[in-house]
Amino acid sequence: MVEPATDTIAATRLVPLLKDELDIVIPTIRNLDFLEMWRPFFEPYHLIIVQDGDPSKVIKVPEGFDYELYNRNDINRILGPKASCISFKDSACRCFGYMVSKKKYIFTIDDDCFIFMLCCVFRDGFDLLCDLGFLDFGSVCVICADKSVAKDPSGKAINALEQHIKNILSPSTPFFFNTLYDPYRDGADFVRGYPFSLREGAPTAVSHGLWLNIPDYDAPTQLVKPLERNTRYVDAVLTIPKGTLFPMCGMNLCFDRDLIGPAMYFGLMGDGQPIGRYDDMWAGWCTKVICDHLGLGVKTGLPYIYHSKASNPFVNLKKEYKGIFWQEEIIPFFQAATLSKDCTSVQKCYIELSKQVKEKLGKVDPYFDKLADAMVTWIEAWDELNPSGASAKVSNGKA
Amino acid sequence: MVEPATDTIAATRLVPLLKDELDIVIPTIRNLDFLEMWRPFFEPYHLIIVQDGDPSKVIKVPEGFDYELYNRNDINRILGPKASCISFKDSACRCFGYMVSKKKYIFTIDDDCFIFMLCCVFRDGFDLLCDLGFLDFGSVCVICADKSVAKDPSGKAINALEQHIKNILSPSTPFFFNTLYDPYRDGADFVRGYPFSLREGAPTAVSHGLWLNIPDYDAPTQLVKPLERNTRYVDAVLTIPKGTLFPMCGMNLCFDRDLIGPAMYFGLMGDGQPIGRYDDMWAGWCTKVICDHLGLGVKTGLPYIYHSKASNPFVNLKKEYKGIFWQEEIIPFFQAATLSKDCTSVQKCYIELSKQVKEKLGKVDPYFDKLADAMVTWIEAWDELNPSGASAKVSNGKA
Repeated sequence: MVEPATDTIAATRLVPLLKDELDIVIPTIRNLDFLEMWRPFFEPYHLIIVQDGDPSKVIKVPEGFDYELYNRNDINRILGPKASCISFKDSACRCFGYMVSKKKYIFTIDDDCFIFMLCCVFRDGFDLLCDLGFLDFGSVCVICADKSVAKDPSGKAINALEQHIKNILSPSTPFFFNTLYDPYRDGADFVRGYPFSLREGAPTAVSHGLWLNIPDYDAPTQLVKPLERNTRYVDAVLTIPKGTLFPMCGMNLCFDRDLIGPAMYFGLMGDGQPIGRYDDMWAGWCTKVICDHLGLGVKTGLPYIYHSKASNPFVNLKKEYKGIFWQEEIIPFFQAATLSKDCTSVQKCYIELSKQVKEKLGKVDPYFDKLADAMVTWIEAWDELNPSGASAKVSNGKA
Repeated sequence: MVEPATDTIAATRLVPLLKDELDIVIPTIRNLDFLEMWRPFFEPYHLIIVQDGDPSKVIKVPEGFDYELYNRNDINRILGPKASCISFKDSACRCFGYMVSKKKYIFTIDDDCFIFMLCCVFRDGFDLLCDLGFLDFGSVCVICADKSVAKDPSGKAINALEQHIKNILSPSTPFFFNTLYDPYRDGADFVRGYPFSLREGAPTAVSHGLWLNIPDYDAPTQLVKPLERNTRYVDAVLTIPKGTLFPMCGMNLCFDRDLIGPAMYFGLMGDGQPIGRYDDMWAGWCTKVICDHLGLGVKTGLPYIYHSKASNPFVNLKKEYKGIFWQEEIIPFFQAATLSKDCTSVQKCYIELSKQVKEKLGKVDPYFDKLADAMVTWIEAWDELNPSGASAKVSNGKA
């Protein structure tokens, strides 16, 4: 007889959630020693590491991790001419990882982010972070305010990936707003006045997590508020309503590849392109329009990760400044975008959207012509690497 | 020279926010001794008490409060035949208070709700609540977890009305979702990817507060989950996006009378009517459609009040059951409702909406014909009591 687990760490290690159905995608330009800090958390999962920048640089991966690593040469070899749709010298290259994965779910995270479970569940991991000087608030957890408290405000241990998985395995509520937030969470439900016919919800395609410490600000806001830190822990998950766009950040993101994968293209950024830092935004706007069309849900809120380092606002401004103008036209474009009834798959939706991008945004700048073409190439490459039903073999649907 | 206040209670008493611009509207069937518990909080403000039920019952109001009290005889006398639009034997009668107010802002609250500032700012008030047995969690504040801590999770003293006023005096963001919630709060801002042209926001018409302890569930949910209590303090205020409907609860609500007052009609409920408990819902749906049309914002989230007593689910089921069917047709109706460009005032919008109610919902039940007529009567009565610009005399606009 198997003894019931009494220790949280042991239990997590014994039964990692969706172990065989989820890949963790990490874009990196750094030495991978940082994975050491994530060992207790990432070790049960398969990692897809997309090496950004110089492919001749050899990146060492610590012992014990199950991973595959792709550099630019690999991407070129695998995709051939279609590799042109994958950005170079920009973390937008991460979307190559989404394409080569064969799992149902993807969790992607930046390599300057820490998982908040460290302090609460894995005290050793938290100690290590402190000892290595990665946490700048001494040895006190910003959530618990005390290392010795292994609970979040509702009394449960915090586990970022577990929260993403909960978000994505429970339905969304895109058609009507629930004032007590996610009605599927423990201790919550639909409030008075919520139509019963809508309580089944919609399948959740995306779980967008947030960040404590360094907020995800644009360069102008960074410049104006260099010292601002996000210290507000908002204990909520909510569905972004149908018809509403949001700024999707790629730092702490989980999604269902089967439901929405082909829309998660991070565009053309970085080397040879006129903008950067709009890769995740672009993916978010396309994704939201397609989710709305297909009746899928997008959640935002928990889990938080700890974002340790602010990027350089001057460098960011150089990358962003065209985007700051362009987004004033991009947002109304996406707000007005509608897809025809024939668009019954993500791929069809995405191709249709690429045509509208070319037609409407092509006038704004020739960059959007090139981007529209890359969107088509992306779908061609996706379909080549993912012949119909390939990922369905791995997973057997939702819990 | 005036000494700077060092005591929070004294400071609050010296400078109550919007003292001359805000009325507190309370519908009640009870003896008003309960006001004693609210004395430190409500005393600086003018109260409008709408007595529900038997007008021959004399209701005593404790000394020291500045109030006006209206019973059914007063309503009949003031409105004449138009009094037919004000519900009888139902807390929907509260909207009469909105109509007779001459202030710019209204805060309305049920008489079984407590303000959470009590434990944190007014220790005496909190002690009193405990002594009187109104708080069922002993003498420990569910937010502070300790009476001796006068702070919310972000380190500030909690004051429910102050939070509503902050919500309503700062803009809303109905046109694009900000993932760090209200960007106008201290320590927050617009995130990367938020269009700069939308950062001015929209004027806020409504601040919808939430409830700890007894959640605002419908009768079926109450029956299924009799023991469920809301203990999750979500430290967020957010704008409900344009085009999204929500279930507006009248228990803890603040709004700008000048901006949206005439839409805050609580309909025909209670005595002689086929339904109850949809008064605030009806007001919320009409209000949201009109706010969306006029470019006004609706916020939800903080502040919380403590909702002390669950109403009887069997009684509630009797009141609600037709509404449970009807809302399946009402929601699509409001989701599809559009107002013409000629609707440039709340009154014009409301009259236009009443015509659509008659035309589209009249088919569902003759009740909606009657309700549509009452909507028109309500506007006529509003305009009679509020000749153009009357409330503008009192207030001088927003801070």
